[in-house]
Amino acid sequence: MERILTNLKLVTLEPDHGYHVIDNAMVIIRQGKISYAGSYQADQLNHADSQAELVDCQQALVTPGFIDCHTHLIFAGNRANEFEQRLNGVPYEDIAKAGGGILSTVRATREATEDELFELAMARLAGLKRDGVTTVEVKSGYGLTTEDELKMLRVARRIGEQADIKVSTTLLAAHALPPEFAGRSDAYIDLVCDEIIPAAAQENLADAVDVFCEGIGFSPTQCERVFKAAIKHGLMIKGHTEQLSNLGGSALAAEMGAKSVDHIEYLDEAGVEALAKHNTVATLLPGAFYFLRETQQPPVALLREKRVPMAISTDFNPGTSPIASLRTMMNMACTFFRLTPEECLRGVTVNAAQALGLSETCGQIREGMAADLALWRVSSPAELSYRMGVPDLIARVVDGEFFYQPENQSQEAVCRLI
Amino acid sequence: MERILTNLKLVTLEPDHGYHVIDNAMVIIRQGKISYAGSYQADQLNHADSQAELVDCQQALVTPGFIDCHTHLIFAGNRANEFEQRLNGVPYEDIAKAGGGILSTVRATREATEDELFELAMARLAGLKRDGVTTVEVKSGYGLTTEDELKMLRVARRIGEQADIKVSTTLLAAHALPPEFAGRSDAYIDLVCDEIIPAAAQENLADAVDVFCEGIGFSPTQCERVFKAAIKHGLMIKGHTEQLSNLGGSALAAEMGAKSVDHIEYLDEAGVEALAKHNTVATLLPGAFYFLRETQQPPVALLREKRVPMAISTDFNPGTSPIASLRTMMNMACTFFRLTPEECLRGVTVNAAQALGLSETCGQIREGMAADLALWRVSSPAELSYRMGVPDLIARVVDGEFFYQPENQSQEAVCRLI
Ligand SMILES: [Zn+2]
Ligand SMILES: [Zn+2]
Repeated sequence: MERILTNLKLVTLEPDHGYHVIDNAMVIIRQGKISYAGSYQADQLNHADSQAELVDCQQALVTPGFIDCHTHLIFAGNRANEFEQRLNGVPYEDIAKAGGGILSTVRATREATEDELFELAMARLAGLKRDGVTTVEVKSGYGLTTEDELKMLRVARRIGEQADIKVSTTLLAAHALPPEFAGRSDAYIDLVCDEIIPAAAQENLADAVDVFCEGIGFSPTQCERVFKAAIKHGLMIKGHTEQLSNLGGSALAAEMGAKSVDHIEYLDEAGVEALAKHNTVATLLPGAFYFLRETQQPPVALLREKRVPMAISTDFNPGTSPIASLRTMMNMACTFFRLTPEECLRGVTVNAAQALGLSETCGQIREGMAADLALWRVSSPAELSYRMGVPDLIARVVDGEFFYQPENQSQEAVCRLI
Repeated sequence: MERILTNLKLVTLEPDHGYHVIDNAMVIIRQGKISYAGSYQADQLNHADSQAELVDCQQALVTPGFIDCHTHLIFAGNRANEFEQRLNGVPYEDIAKAGGGILSTVRATREATEDELFELAMARLAGLKRDGVTTVEVKSGYGLTTEDELKMLRVARRIGEQADIKVSTTLLAAHALPPEFAGRSDAYIDLVCDEIIPAAAQENLADAVDVFCEGIGFSPTQCERVFKAAIKHGLMIKGHTEQLSNLGGSALAAEMGAKSVDHIEYLDEAGVEALAKHNTVATLLPGAFYFLRETQQPPVALLREKRVPMAISTDFNPGTSPIASLRTMMNMACTFFRLTPEECLRGVTVNAAQALGLSETCGQIREGMAADLALWRVSSPAELSYRMGVPDLIARVVDGEFFYQPENQSQEAVCRLI
């Protein structure tokens, strides 16, 4: 199947600065891949297949499909009650004593079936799709047993198979210490390294392995063991690092070849230099910064100066970022972290692809890449970071297939076959 | 036409504390009004019209339709470029010199036709509808001539006539000093009082009159003149007050009978007491607080103590709150201002209705009120403030008519005729 998109403004996001907007552009899709992307060229039509579908995009702005490179999309249970209790003045200790916090999510997730987890995740995914997401990373981390971690990853794979979105899966068994291992964190790390990682690799359920390197998570030494086990099984690595304190987890991860380190509010200059040296992506998570009312800023000026690629993601999760909107994250990254709209757009496309090890297949619009696109009813790329809540998305394109945003009929009419 | 809704959880928001949730509830709608709302009663079915439509809501949570009581939804032009320039380090003075700021919106709005303004506003409105909004207030204020202010109000009225949403219109001619009156603000207030207000009243285009009482807006003395002219013409009054400094505009407005005072970050105790005394609604606008990176908190504890009703609104506008999402505002009111989820829900329903002088017709679910409802796929009312971005809305009901959120097919199936 061949599709030819005309009458569009193309944001190619080529390397270096600038959006690289091409007015009156043309994109040709063959077999789900981009075979041409650039200025309109009439002679391209002559070479087209006689069965090719022509799509008049009516001046839509076309960006790479958005990539949400850090989510905890799969879980059961509800933390709205805790949110409400805290705002009604119930102390955190009382909530924890009553079984609240992350362990309440672990309990509910362990009890849930794959079907239940799938349905819950699909509803949340609908929010991400509204913002043009064509690839989403999904972590485990609320199972914390071999069986329950694999259950979560199976659900993640199933979403990638059944939904109109691509899924990159990450094993995050080293997310929290399960209650049955209280006081025995090294023994739990043994289980992660010796059983959970090998099992996930064996069943091809995980693309990467993640850790929570923090005082309330796992130590750098423990994380190093997890990374080594992951590397041994051919999996990519990444880390939740320097979110609440500076333990050196980011530098450790970078030196071991991590694709990204995420949160990094407390990252110091040596850490930034390690990222620069190893070309590790710095993933900023403004939703958690906002929801936790954090005041420590990630070192954006340093990251910029050292040319560390910055990604932006929702960190969608029930405890610290229940926000299924990547465009909200782009606006928050501008407002809280003073990123530019161009940095935000790169952060949810080309740099997010790099964070997932997908630089060769998505995140940019050029020949040979997957035809993963987002079509927008906006006049400039800056609008994607500037405004929130307005349904600007016309359609997502995943491997060349169009998925129109059904909400607004006038939007649907904008892209029509000719 | 009669509709009987069963199998739902009803949040009636009766006066005083608590959500007043009724499980296994029933709502009967006759001629667009609520004729029964309460526990399921089988004998109600016996009295029903034989043509009545039965709707099985499948455990949906049903709240009053949301009311966005403060928006600048109608304008032309684009301020994303300014947003981007500021983040790229261009000084505000340079942007203003190049014709940026509110006057760029005034210029573009004056140049736009009613049809153009209508189309632009409808796209933004689609965002508000996603969050269950059934009534929206729309202000003028970017025309600043008699003709252009009336043009904006005509567009607002037209939205109310043609769209599946109710519109309350507010004349905000005293929003900014038009450039042609530079140095002659009293002369502009003459025009507002002697020509624009009478003309708007004459054509029945405005339900209320609003002012921007601020150092960069108009003085309390000027605002008092505007309020007097409005009252003389039978229009409600309200004010943008105490946003950037404490000029006493809120107390002035309250004493003159204002329905609401809005922003109020700088409101002092005497001001809060004036609101309490006159039963004036305090409308909090967390979107502008967020977007401007304001640090001065509105006096929430005092407002609570003195039992001043608090409303929450988007303040949707291109300069300081380009955020078309009332649920984002609810979450921000919790996160920034420490409101409780119950206060937020009252803030977008019963208290927002009071801010618009609509307490007798909407904002609660009880006999005699308009059947303006929102049906949600959430398990508790706190979730409406807790999470953002997930498409939880199943349908809006406006005067008894159902408008399903088309996005998610599984949602559509949730409410079915039986
Ligand atoms: Zn995370
Ligand atoms: Zn306003």
